[in-house]
Amino acid sequence: MIVEIICVGTEILMGNIVNTNAAYLSEQCAGLGLTMYYQSVVGDNPQRLEQLVTDAMKRSDILIFSGGLGPTQDDLTKETVAKVFGLPLVEDATALGLLIQSFERFQKPMTENNRKQALVPKGSMVLQNRAGTAPGIIIEGKQATAILLPGPPNELIPMFHEQVAPYLKTRSDATLFSKMIKIVGVGESAVETMILDLIQGQTNPTIATYAKTGEVHVRITAFAKTQELAMEYIQPLIDIMNERFTYHIFAYDEDTTLEQAIILKLKEMNATISTAESCTGGLLAGRIINASGASVVYNEGFITYSNASKVKNLFVNEASIEEYGVVSEVVAKEMAKGCRIQTGSSFALSTTGIAGPNGGTTDKPVGTVCIGCSFEQETVAKQFRLSGTREKIREVAVNRALVYLWDIIGGHIN
Amino acid sequence: MIVEIICVGTEILMGNIVNTNAAYLSEQCAGLGLTMYYQSVVGDNPQRLEQLVTDAMKRSDILIFSGGLGPTQDDLTKETVAKVFGLPLVEDATALGLLIQSFERFQKPMTENNRKQALVPKGSMVLQNRAGTAPGIIIEGKQATAILLPGPPNELIPMFHEQVAPYLKTRSDATLFSKMIKIVGVGESAVETMILDLIQGQTNPTIATYAKTGEVHVRITAFAKTQELAMEYIQPLIDIMNERFTYHIFAYDEDTTLEQAIILKLKEMNATISTAESCTGGLLAGRIINASGASVVYNEGFITYSNASKVKNLFVNEASIEEYGVVSEVVAKEMAKGCRIQTGSSFALSTTGIAGPNGGTTDKPVGTVCIGCSFEQETVAKQFRLSGTREKIREVAVNRALVYLWDIIGGHIN
Repeated sequence: MIVEIICVGTEILMGNIVNTNAAYLSEQCAGLGLTMYYQSVVGDNPQRLEQLVTDAMKRSDILIFSGGLGPTQDDLTKETVAKVFGLPLVEDATALGLLIQSFERFQKPMTENNRKQALVPKGSMVLQNRAGTAPGIIIEGKQATAILLPGPPNELIPMFHEQVAPYLKTRSDATLFSKMIKIVGVGESAVETMILDLIQGQTNPTIATYAKTGEVHVRITAFAKTQELAMEYIQPLIDIMNERFTYHIFAYDEDTTLEQAIILKLKEMNATISTAESCTGGLLAGRIINASGASVVYNEGFITYSNASKVKNLFVNEASIEEYGVVSEVVAKEMAKGCRIQTGSSFALSTTGIAGPNGGTTDKPVGTVCIGCSFEQETVAKQFRLSGTREKIREVAVNRALVYLWDIIGGHIN
Repeated sequence: MIVEIICVGTEILMGNIVNTNAAYLSEQCAGLGLTMYYQSVVGDNPQRLEQLVTDAMKRSDILIFSGGLGPTQDDLTKETVAKVFGLPLVEDATALGLLIQSFERFQKPMTENNRKQALVPKGSMVLQNRAGTAPGIIIEGKQATAILLPGPPNELIPMFHEQVAPYLKTRSDATLFSKMIKIVGVGESAVETMILDLIQGQTNPTIATYAKTGEVHVRITAFAKTQELAMEYIQPLIDIMNERFTYHIFAYDEDTTLEQAIILKLKEMNATISTAESCTGGLLAGRIINASGASVVYNEGFITYSNASKVKNLFVNEASIEEYGVVSEVVAKEMAKGCRIQTGSSFALSTTGIAGPNGGTTDKPVGTVCIGCSFEQETVAKQFRLSGTREKIREVAVNRALVYLWDIIGGHIN
């Protein structure tokens, strides 16, 4: 089954946005065992889109479109694909119902041009859009199938995941099944070296590594008739990886994030966590709380961006700030300890650092970040030297803090 | 002059890498005043690449390729393009010289398959690769020009910037210059309706709208001989937009974010801001602090995820929580007021809501978020009904809070 991706939008051709939809859809299709030969981007121009659809139908079985489903005059994907497939547009009761529901949910009035979104090519299937108004559409034509998805990734991703992937599974003859092993505290090249013997011999399953911020993800993928059979190929490799990476592995699936793994662990321990942030200014708490169910382990936290607020809210000694500097392991420890006293949590994490672009010195250049952790037995801290933009440094600092906590919870302070 | 991008690489089709080259090249070409109608991705397969090049030559004047120039057996872009252009490959003295230099620079031995990289289509121009070994190539054919660039972005970007852009400038007759107007507090379709007369009449300049989370960006682009001349076309439209959107416009350039605009405004007012977050749990502070220079206006904030911490840190009345619920305008107001008292800030923003996936009720479904703001004259709050995943609801809540503050600062409480 050959699949092709067609992204519609002048903003992509103009370089205004990076085409992350294409990357997402490619990865998902590969995971579903579908073959892909071509991807294209075309602007909001019906003639050129029509030409592209006509060509694509000749060479691929399933065409997945993103973009151009909205209510504006520019949005012409549906009209054009319907034309090539020789289907009239009809108002679909399901689509109209979903559309009205969406507008009610968003408490917005529905204008006439919005109603255009309820028009679908005759005989097509309608896909619900949970995050926006434009429904998705599946058209099973004689020559090919067209799947029309909205452009915004926050609409496209859940729609694909919940409705398109199950549909595509029924169209694919073999299953490509994969397990994701997520590792922290070991760099990408170290991980690669540690599994080089497994990578070199690979045919089925295959092994691929992906570097994420502060994490390495290893995907083990097997082709087989059934998922159970695929797992029989994959399991021995997971066993070897467990032996080699021990507690550095925090998840065995695509969806579990490091913060979720931490929260699960803390729940098991009946423990709570709080945060005291300077340079990360809320992002660390923000990431912990992003895990659903965080309220069981997270109650409160402090953003202490100024020195005065560190003293006032976390009982940091002014003398420590003066002697060691506000970005120091000493202050990070005092912040963490003060936070634990203030909140009564089992663990308290702190961050203090220089995210830049200004504020660096020779001793403590931009990217210097100290992370503290206080718990019943001990209060510890560690200094990191990070690099990149202000945004990147703050993101990595959050990751380092979570990894630091993961190591401590696992009994491995480093 | 019509340009087309063709990226070669099975790894893109598999979704293993995001095609950032296409985004970079698109943006650069737009900036050079070149028109682009199509972008394609094709795998490391000579037959399919050949077909694509044959089609692309018919519809575009300049084809820019990335990828497939390396020394391995998979790398076939040069061979395939030369074939379609009807040119034999010959060893080029310049290319060989550059190649030998590269290997000396990287202190690596040059193997025989590397020598293949010195072969170029007869009569083509060779582009030096500062960061890798594969040279770039420009072929000026009768029907079209092909520009072959290496795949790794750290090789492609400097090569494009230093050698290809100057070449393309000589092929382009005009400059494309654009201004970005960023709007908050008005939805995308409302913005479109308000400027429909400008969009419909558009030729030069052109106007395009882009929906971002909680923002609408309007790009006004003009073609002209010089940037100054382009601005003469653009300025009258900016004046009209200023009249129509007044304080809803927060930036006139690509780079300024809403949080930066807010911080600039607060600085001007000599004011400070603090935050008290429940459902957004640090993300609001995190976004404000992401603007460099935030320390002048932001000192401290509270993450009060549990009810107890709202009472303890922000003096919220337990009775209010019981009577109105913790997600209510009353509690949002008390949180904001308590935060302003605790911190002495000029403005305090609060958030309390149900980010889901659990915790929703009929009265207050998942996505109900109340945002409060306290300042000298008044303490106000507003309820929102948001949708999407937990992550999305929290992201949009942060945006709504910033927009709410922007309105209040501008004297427009709504």
